[in-house]
Amino acid sequence: MRIAVDAMGGDYAPAVVVEGITTALYDFPEYELTIVGHLGKLSYYLEKYGIEDHPRLKQLHAEQVIEMGDSPTVALRSKKHSSMTACARLLKEGKVDAIVSAGNTGAAVAATKVIARTLPGVDRPMIAASMPALSGRFVLGDSGANVDCRPIHLVQFAIMAEVYAKYLFGIDKPTIGLLSVGGEAGKGNDLTKEVFQILSKLPINFIGNVEGNNVFQNVADVVVCDGFIGNVLLKSAEGLSKTTMLLMKELFSKTPARLTGALLSRSAFKELKAFADPDDFGGAPLLGINGICIISHGSASAKAVRNAIRAAGESVQFGVNDKIVRRIAETKEIIESMGIK
Amino acid sequence: MRIAVDAMGGDYAPAVVVEGITTALYDFPEYELTIVGHLGKLSYYLEKYGIEDHPRLKQLHAEQVIEMGDSPTVALRSKKHSSMTACARLLKEGKVDAIVSAGNTGAAVAATKVIARTLPGVDRPMIAASMPALSGRFVLGDSGANVDCRPIHLVQFAIMAEVYAKYLFGIDKPTIGLLSVGGEAGKGNDLTKEVFQILSKLPINFIGNVEGNNVFQNVADVVVCDGFIGNVLLKSAEGLSKTTMLLMKELFSKTPARLTGALLSRSAFKELKAFADPDDFGGAPLLGINGICIISHGSASAKAVRNAIRAAGESVQFGVNDKIVRRIAETKEIIESMGIK
Repeated sequence: MRIAVDAMGGDYAPAVVVEGITTALYDFPEYELTIVGHLGKLSYYLEKYGIEDHPRLKQLHAEQVIEMGDSPTVALRSKKHSSMTACARLLKEGKVDAIVSAGNTGAAVAATKVIARTLPGVDRPMIAASMPALSGRFVLGDSGANVDCRPIHLVQFAIMAEVYAKYLFGIDKPTIGLLSVGGEAGKGNDLTKEVFQILSKLPINFIGNVEGNNVFQNVADVVVCDGFIGNVLLKSAEGLSKTTMLLMKELFSKTPARLTGALLSRSAFKELKAFADPDDFGGAPLLGINGICIISHGSASAKAVRNAIRAAGESVQFGVNDKIVRRIAETKEIIESMGIK
Repeated sequence: MRIAVDAMGGDYAPAVVVEGITTALYDFPEYELTIVGHLGKLSYYLEKYGIEDHPRLKQLHAEQVIEMGDSPTVALRSKKHSSMTACARLLKEGKVDAIVSAGNTGAAVAATKVIARTLPGVDRPMIAASMPALSGRFVLGDSGANVDCRPIHLVQFAIMAEVYAKYLFGIDKPTIGLLSVGGEAGKGNDLTKEVFQILSKLPINFIGNVEGNNVFQNVADVVVCDGFIGNVLLKSAEGLSKTTMLLMKELFSKTPARLTGALLSRSAFKELKAFADPDDFGGAPLLGINGICIISHGSASAKAVRNAIRAAGESVQFGVNDKIVRRIAETKEIIESMGIK
């Protein structure tokens, strides 16, 4: 298992990335890692964590860094020697099985798409975020790679997310819901109405439209939408969770009785906080490209980086991409017979 | 102040609607109300609450009921004698100043649009939901009336929501944000990128793109988006709040210490629950139609109905519609000079 990690991506890079790599080297003795970044800037941290000469860690120098605010297309054109593009090149050349980055998501999507290319039959890569639900989780796809979509894109998102959900939840027939504004078949916008018709005809466990008010209550294993809405949903869920925690802090410190109460039940607060913690999960895969790419949260911690490396390794082992290619091929005829392009 | 209330709309109609009307008659002695619905089915409740002969309550019979699951267009065509269409007709004929319904939102939008028509210069009515934020609230528009939008629609939503926010928050220059997937001007989909350009040129307090992770933290007084995304955001916020409360109930009853703690701080839990309670607010206005229309939550309680009636009266007093017509006219030239239709 060979995994490259973009050391320069993320708000707390490279410190937390090196720390995450250190833990991963310890926890996963079968992984061979490559740290990619500006070695001059990395050497301090590699020494600090004592992994500068680790037998399972290669080092690859990249002169440039794509910043979080950089426009993906501009970054790709003007920063040909960035750590992100170097990772994508390793993937393309078959030198690694998977890559991990906590950097600029748009740039990661663009770099892997342009350099490593998409899988046969896949038009666009998608981000499949795993979201917390009342019990367990659900896969939200696309959660941010494609802001303007045609029906065929959402259909491919559904197929790719189905494969990922099989791996993630260890189930055979994940339920697939289409995010819309009403439960009935006729509800939705022009895009979702057409997607609904196609998904109804595919050999998948399509349960119809699902709505915002029940996605967090395990209504479906996979929730399909375009990347604009997926990103709004993902970020607003994070924002609302954060707001709720801030509000609770304020409310529970208003009176001495409440403070005592909060103290007695502080372990419950910890569990509540863990519910929405993206670090446990590490990151979301970018599905549909040639090779495995896990994108971690911009504010990823060392734990998140370590878990993203684990997710990358597991995805390779599960053979996510082979299964995606097979499922896309299996459904191609049905989709084409409907005149969808 | 003359307000008609659709007694048949909502999950708990007509019982909670009649109860809400009863409270409103008591609380707002200057309001003249008209209850619209199937009088044969209403008489029991009118007697139960002792308002069957109330001097400020008129009764209007409507034979049909639009159900929550009815398709708006079908309902409008096949149920010409519904309580909802009867309300819209009262509005059109100038017999009331405002209407209130907790029924099928799509049908309310369609009925008022077709029967009462839109205000001069307004292409489409919008729903302006008031959402809870860390301190105070924000207006989300459109939150569900229009699932497929062109740029001009979102621009008009911004102008109408600005007027509503002035009334709601009592401020002169509400900040207006455009919901997108990144803070920078270039981030967004085809629709929002064009809307961004237009809003930048208008005499409004436009603060640029806002994201899902900060809308609940008072980043803007008004958040503009199309009705599909607005509806997904609104419902997912409700769903996540509900899921969080359910999860807390589970977590805080796991051990005796936690239970005691929860008991000591139970007033904080109540305040937390109130944070997301839509009933306090009553309902959201449908802006842009000739006349005031307040749409209440389908699961509205009697308190919500009472508060929706109050919101209807206040909107009339504030002169929301006159102000919208004026603002639309003021910005028309700038928008037309940009070639936007």
